[in-house]
Amino acid sequence: MSSSSSSSNEVQHSVTNNSNVSKVVINECLSNDLSNDNEEMINQVKGCYESLPNRIVHEQFLKDFIDVILDKAVFEGTLRNEKVVEWVEPKTLSSLIDLSLPMNGVPQEELLSLTRNIIKYSVKTGHPHFVNQLFSSVDPYGLAGQWLTDALNPSVYTYEVSPVFSLMENEVLKEMRKIIGWEDGQGDGIFCPGGSMANGYAINLARHYKFPEYKETGSTEVSRLVIFTSEDAHYSVKKLAAFLGIGTSNVYCVKVDERGKMCLKDLELRVNEVLCQKAVPLMVSATAGTTVLGAFDPLKEIADICKKYDMWFHVDAAWGGGALMSTKYRFLLDGIELADSITWNPHKLLAAPQQCSTLLVHHEGLLESAHASKASYLFQPDKFYDTSYDSGDKHIQCGRRADVLKFWLMWKAKGTNGFEKHIDRVFELSQFFTNYIRQREGWKLIFEPECTNVCFWYTPPSKRHLKGEQLSNLLHKIAPIIKERMVRKGSMLITYQSLRNLPNFFRLVLQNSGLTKTDMRFFVDEIERLSSDL
Amino acid sequence: MSSSSSSSNEVQHSVTNNSNVSKVVINECLSNDLSNDNEEMINQVKGCYESLPNRIVHEQFLKDFIDVILDKAVFEGTLRNEKVVEWVEPKTLSSLIDLSLPMNGVPQEELLSLTRNIIKYSVKTGHPHFVNQLFSSVDPYGLAGQWLTDALNPSVYTYEVSPVFSLMENEVLKEMRKIIGWEDGQGDGIFCPGGSMANGYAINLARHYKFPEYKETGSTEVSRLVIFTSEDAHYSVKKLAAFLGIGTSNVYCVKVDERGKMCLKDLELRVNEVLCQKAVPLMVSATAGTTVLGAFDPLKEIADICKKYDMWFHVDAAWGGGALMSTKYRFLLDGIELADSITWNPHKLLAAPQQCSTLLVHHEGLLESAHASKASYLFQPDKFYDTSYDSGDKHIQCGRRADVLKFWLMWKAKGTNGFEKHIDRVFELSQFFTNYIRQREGWKLIFEPECTNVCFWYTPPSKRHLKGEQLSNLLHKIAPIIKERMVRKGSMLITYQSLRNLPNFFRLVLQNSGLTKTDMRFFVDEIERLSSDL
Repeated sequence: MSSSSSSSNEVQHSVTNNSNVSKVVINECLSNDLSNDNEEMINQVKGCYESLPNRIVHEQFLKDFIDVILDKAVFEGTLRNEKVVEWVEPKTLSSLIDLSLPMNGVPQEELLSLTRNIIKYSVKTGHPHFVNQLFSSVDPYGLAGQWLTDALNPSVYTYEVSPVFSLMENEVLKEMRKIIGWEDGQGDGIFCPGGSMANGYAINLARHYKFPEYKETGSTEVSRLVIFTSEDAHYSVKKLAAFLGIGTSNVYCVKVDERGKMCLKDLELRVNEVLCQKAVPLMVSATAGTTVLGAFDPLKEIADICKKYDMWFHVDAAWGGGALMSTKYRFLLDGIELADSITWNPHKLLAAPQQCSTLLVHHEGLLESAHASKASYLFQPDKFYDTSYDSGDKHIQCGRRADVLKFWLMWKAKGTNGFEKHIDRVFELSQFFTNYIRQREGWKLIFEPECTNVCFWYTPPSKRHLKGEQLSNLLHKIAPIIKERMVRKGSMLITYQSLRNLPNFFRLVLQNSGLTKTDMRFFVDEIERLSSDL
Repeated sequence: MSSSSSSSNEVQHSVTNNSNVSKVVINECLSNDLSNDNEEMINQVKGCYESLPNRIVHEQFLKDFIDVILDKAVFEGTLRNEKVVEWVEPKTLSSLIDLSLPMNGVPQEELLSLTRNIIKYSVKTGHPHFVNQLFSSVDPYGLAGQWLTDALNPSVYTYEVSPVFSLMENEVLKEMRKIIGWEDGQGDGIFCPGGSMANGYAINLARHYKFPEYKETGSTEVSRLVIFTSEDAHYSVKKLAAFLGIGTSNVYCVKVDERGKMCLKDLELRVNEVLCQKAVPLMVSATAGTTVLGAFDPLKEIADICKKYDMWFHVDAAWGGGALMSTKYRFLLDGIELADSITWNPHKLLAAPQQCSTLLVHHEGLLESAHASKASYLFQPDKFYDTSYDSGDKHIQCGRRADVLKFWLMWKAKGTNGFEKHIDRVFELSQFFTNYIRQREGWKLIFEPECTNVCFWYTPPSKRHLKGEQLSNLLHKIAPIIKERMVRKGSMLITYQSLRNLPNFFRLVLQNSGLTKTDMRFFVDEIERLSSDL
């Protein structure tokens, strides 16, 4: 048993703004107080500012709060007959929710009413008709995992303060490495605040692996380092290259073929170009599942080129990584086991809640060697336990949320087999959608999808006679109009974009395995409805 | 009203492993299905893998789950007569919680039982006797805010998918800038995944401000850039300097005085040294509340030096920033309004849940200029609404959690005045602790605290005759022993470390305003108890 010298009856004294409850709490405090700290306690209960939970003041509020969340956000918010978004313009929204920060706290009832409003005007990213981004769903087990994480409020840097999550991270990251195909799950890995950061870590590892001295000296006054990625790769490669002092112009965007896959000939051409310039071809960041088209770069062949030119081989599988869990679809990532590092975000294709991103590394010890600073206030050299479980010095973050628990809980609830079914289901639905629009008039696929991204144009009936540039101009113009209409109606959310010389097109993208074929037909019908008069 | 063509009665079909519930769900699905998708639905309900919430399958589970969390983690976990930690060695812990990832999902009851175990063996960072890190508490309103964030699962990059949170971030960041003292809250700001990242952003802004071309060209083959920070500054300055390609050796650690404050003479000396070497003095990262001693650097004077030598002035107020909300203590940060950028983590002194970190910038437009990549799939140029609310391109992250909501809800619940009381309370308690140990035999303060860090040595009765090196050696040796004992007993958690030539000492650090003077006396008594035989 524990050991506090203060009484177990000591009431934790906070108080709500509701004055009836206040009085109860004050009386409770006074009658139960065995510490003779009365004056102190009376002073304390004057406000409700304390950061310590108190059953009397907070239990009912938290239960009511959860009831609102469950009812309005989780269940109603994901019903098909409810809106995905209740659109209002930014300026109007300011007048509909009082976002101002008050001098004095507001009562709990007002917090509940504000909460209902926040839910009302927030986009329901868990709604079946939210197919707008590379994430969606409010997975029930993932959500439970998040809620528990919040209540325990850990920071995962030492076993001392995060024993369970330290082991859990090891377990999950090792299993992911096994799935990648690394023998016995060998290697290392970290959870990162998003796939962009994971790609940034990969660049730094590539640099550190080749030039370990740069950690200390910096990379000024040295050779120019060059990163190769495809022109369809995620923008984070350039963003992070700039952040790391490498510069966006040293990210060479290799051409892609008509399906959006990195062109090997162009890659080798560009590498040789760099060698001629006496610069250093540092790494290739291949993509397994590009953001827009969902294309998978030819990983095996890229691995060969990396080997030939002594370059780090990174695979950004932030989006497509989930397909590794399906016997049927993992062929798309053949060769990923040859990578030096891999970005894989379970919050994308596997529908874990935001954020759950990982960087998996084939080289043991490199994360620590690249990032450790051995701060003695956190990683004391004279600790009494086995500090190999202290993961903090692998990271550039210090305090860090336990993003592992939600994913671990989903994995426990569904099993590896459940994730496989999940993946197969979203691929099957995207195939259904593809076939459905293929045979429908006015619809045109950009290309045969590989991932769950289905990219298409839709031409309204009255414009189907248009051709060439006229048609292009029309398609480019109507996509934002259709999007605006669906947002204002709140019936669905799907994104559009242009790409290279292609005019604006829509991208359906699926991660929510609770969707049905009926939903797929709805998307088609709804886009036709929204553009019938265009 | 919304507009789905699929029936409003369409049942979302998931199923639990509990076979009784399965049958109910299957029957419900079949009887309610108006979409004639029967075969599809029967196939679907075979597993429980779907990522869409379903009242029948998940509502009771989620309610039971929350009950366990509230009961065990939030309320029991913060009671003084409960343990802060139920310590077990890493290897034993693996055998006490089945962390393995199964092929097939486990039943909901087993998830609940695993959850009880996770709570049992996790450190209770919200417990009043957890004074181990620069964060603590499980603030009830912060927790509610986290729970709502999880259920809405937003990513804050565009107003289109995060309308409420986009406005809320603006509101909160502006108010923070007003509190700093920037006229009308002018400037800019972002939420970051931790203070380390915020400091990294600051370095990149400093570099971009002086050398905007580096974003494109990279900083190879150019002048060496030097960052100045004190030897007591947080390790993230070095970590991030390495990550950004500047190098740890180009972070010059300026001497501190006996109270841990940056020494101005040494700063100016080092700047001149750099100028003589034809390198570029880029920035000073001053600290407002150092990690160990809680010292505040002399900001006004550092601002003058920055102005004189044309250096970026960053203040790492990750820890001490909260004191700005107290009329009584904000003098500690006098001069902060002269900064170009400021790191301020509400998850530290203000006890918001992990993570809530901000970078506040005095220069409008610089964040976007330094980090934007204008990805056309996300930041379409032909959007129908005012895209000045799309904050994504200020960040190097792409997907990003809404860390603002928890803090905003706390602010609404407590008001600015509540935060002021919170700050005053934790400062008052640390002052009480300081005075309490000052008059007690065997206790020695390292120095007079400025923040809520109280650093001290304790010498057990039988060793009080020791002096000089003998005493130092003893103190250095017994700190880890006392720490081990308290961890094994689970009675409290406080950290220790050495610093420069000082032997191991303990650091009390307070952020939890629910603590009392009784708790302060308990810490003293408990450390005496734990070391009585040493």
